[in-house]
Amino acid sequence: METLSRIEHALQAAVQLAEAPGSPPRLAAAMRHAVFPGGARIRPQLCLAVARACGDDDPGLTDATAAAIELLHCASLVHDDLPCFDDSPLRRGQPAVHAAFGERLAVLGGDGLIVLAFQVLAMGGTRSPLRLPRLMATVAHGVGAPHGITAGQAWECEPRVALSDYQRAKTGALFAAATMAGAEAAGAPGDTWRALGEWLGEAYQVADDVRDVMADPVQLGKPVGRDRALGRPSSATEQGLDGAIAHFDRLVACAIEAVPPCRGAPQLRALVHAEGERLVPRAWGHRARRLAVPAAG
Amino acid sequence: METLSRIEHALQAAVQLAEAPGSPPRLAAAMRHAVFPGGARIRPQLCLAVARACGDDDPGLTDATAAAIELLHCASLVHDDLPCFDDSPLRRGQPAVHAAFGERLAVLGGDGLIVLAFQVLAMGGTRSPLRLPRLMATVAHGVGAPHGITAGQAWECEPRVALSDYQRAKTGALFAAATMAGAEAAGAPGDTWRALGEWLGEAYQVADDVRDVMADPVQLGKPVGRDRALGRPSSATEQGLDGAIAHFDRLVACAIEAVPPCRGAPQLRALVHAEGERLVPRAWGHRARRLAVPAAG
Repeated sequence: METLSRIEHALQAAVQLAEAPGSPPRLAAAMRHAVFPGGARIRPQLCLAVARACGDDDPGLTDATAAAIELLHCASLVHDDLPCFDDSPLRRGQPAVHAAFGERLAVLGGDGLIVLAFQVLAMGGTRSPLRLPRLMATVAHGVGAPHGITAGQAWECEPRVALSDYQRAKTGALFAAATMAGAEAAGAPGDTWRALGEWLGEAYQVADDVRDVMADPVQLGKPVGRDRALGRPSSATEQGLDGAIAHFDRLVACAIEAVPPCRGAPQLRALVHAEGERLVPRAWGHRARRLAVPAAG
Repeated sequence: METLSRIEHALQAAVQLAEAPGSPPRLAAAMRHAVFPGGARIRPQLCLAVARACGDDDPGLTDATAAAIELLHCASLVHDDLPCFDDSPLRRGQPAVHAAFGERLAVLGGDGLIVLAFQVLAMGGTRSPLRLPRLMATVAHGVGAPHGITAGQAWECEPRVALSDYQRAKTGALFAAATMAGAEAAGAPGDTWRALGEWLGEAYQVADDVRDVMADPVQLGKPVGRDRALGRPSSATEQGLDGAIAHFDRLVACAIEAVPPCRGAPQLRALVHAEGERLVPRAWGHRARRLAVPAAG
């Protein structure tokens, strides 16, 4: 609970920077709309949990890092929902930013959130500036080209793509940035934390594919069946629903295995386990086996 | 000449980061297309000139800062040209990114360039990390909300806007960031350099309005008459062409006055003067007076 309130507090402080006097009111409102109310905030939770496991000796920098990761995630959702991509009318149970504020403010709101993320990092780094170059490079790597979430989304514009490359960039990269940057914000090396983020990111992407088929759209807060409708690469299409759920379970197990030895390891493993159950409830596996939805092709 | 080759070299190195193996090829190509061939590179030139005037004791950081400023400028052009904004088919004499690569890669290419700018700054800051927090905050302030170029563009989505607020944010903010960050990259305080950037930025925006009416579209590299066609706030509409050109001349004079006393002041003043003549040739003033294009309303 304390974790979530730290994250919300850091995100509020960040968004308020963009709402300072003199800001175009509709842009500021679009940026707030993109960030609140939030989803599960799993990436910043993960970032904070890793920072804690590494000592969390500069909580201001940890909070800034967690907020930056979430702002970048929100920015990517705003741009992914645009008419030229998913054209999704809903996000987190409310109108998507372009539906509420128009396409132009969705483009600019996403841009504003990306810039805000790095601004927040810079401001959070005043006490430990020696950590900033590495930390910022890690975050940028998880978001930009060639391997970050922007690149992941861009694979949808290529004629050919390997599903694993696509998933690794589209989702895994920001999860890996969350775990690595969490360690780096606490002054620890990030590299040993990469695998946890990568496994979890891949699991999350598979879960997203499964949820696109299985979940209740009200509970999910966005329309279901979009991947299939848009012909996007999907584990559920490639492996069948049953196969995708089994794949998800293996990935969560790998993520739990990948938690490096440290004081906070038991809590982290419990967090990963609980998140796995939240994403793809065990009951869905039974249901999928009964339905036996086949793989495509 | 050395200035321009430093800038092009730094931009090449930056774009190559996004082209590393594993990058989606069309995204990487869209990003390169947005940056090369360049325009006048006036913002990074200004940044570099100020850094030189302040000693330029960490040229790697200066180059990274200049490149970051230009990458952010290029990103803003890509997004401003999108169909939902100006829907401009041409930029710098070649097809705009959305015209060449499609709307999706224009959105993502712009996003990628914003992230790349901060990545380049972070990498450039390894020798002088203590300068990074201030420097990055300056750059972010010039680009994001409430007062940066993203906010400037967002004023176009508001029902009411003061022309000076719009121009200050849309153009002045990144010019001010260029001068201030140039000083900060060299370890000097940025504040005394703000006025130069702000005057020059305002002059540049007025010049843009004048050029939208006066310039040859081939020479300009983009269509003319867009501001009027799109009903955008414009000095040339508000003050008449003659009035706008006189206003421009006053702003350039103020910019020249605002160069703080320093070793490189004469070169900087000469640069500002030459840039003024390049943007709005003296001959245009005579032509405008002969034509006597009136103010609107």
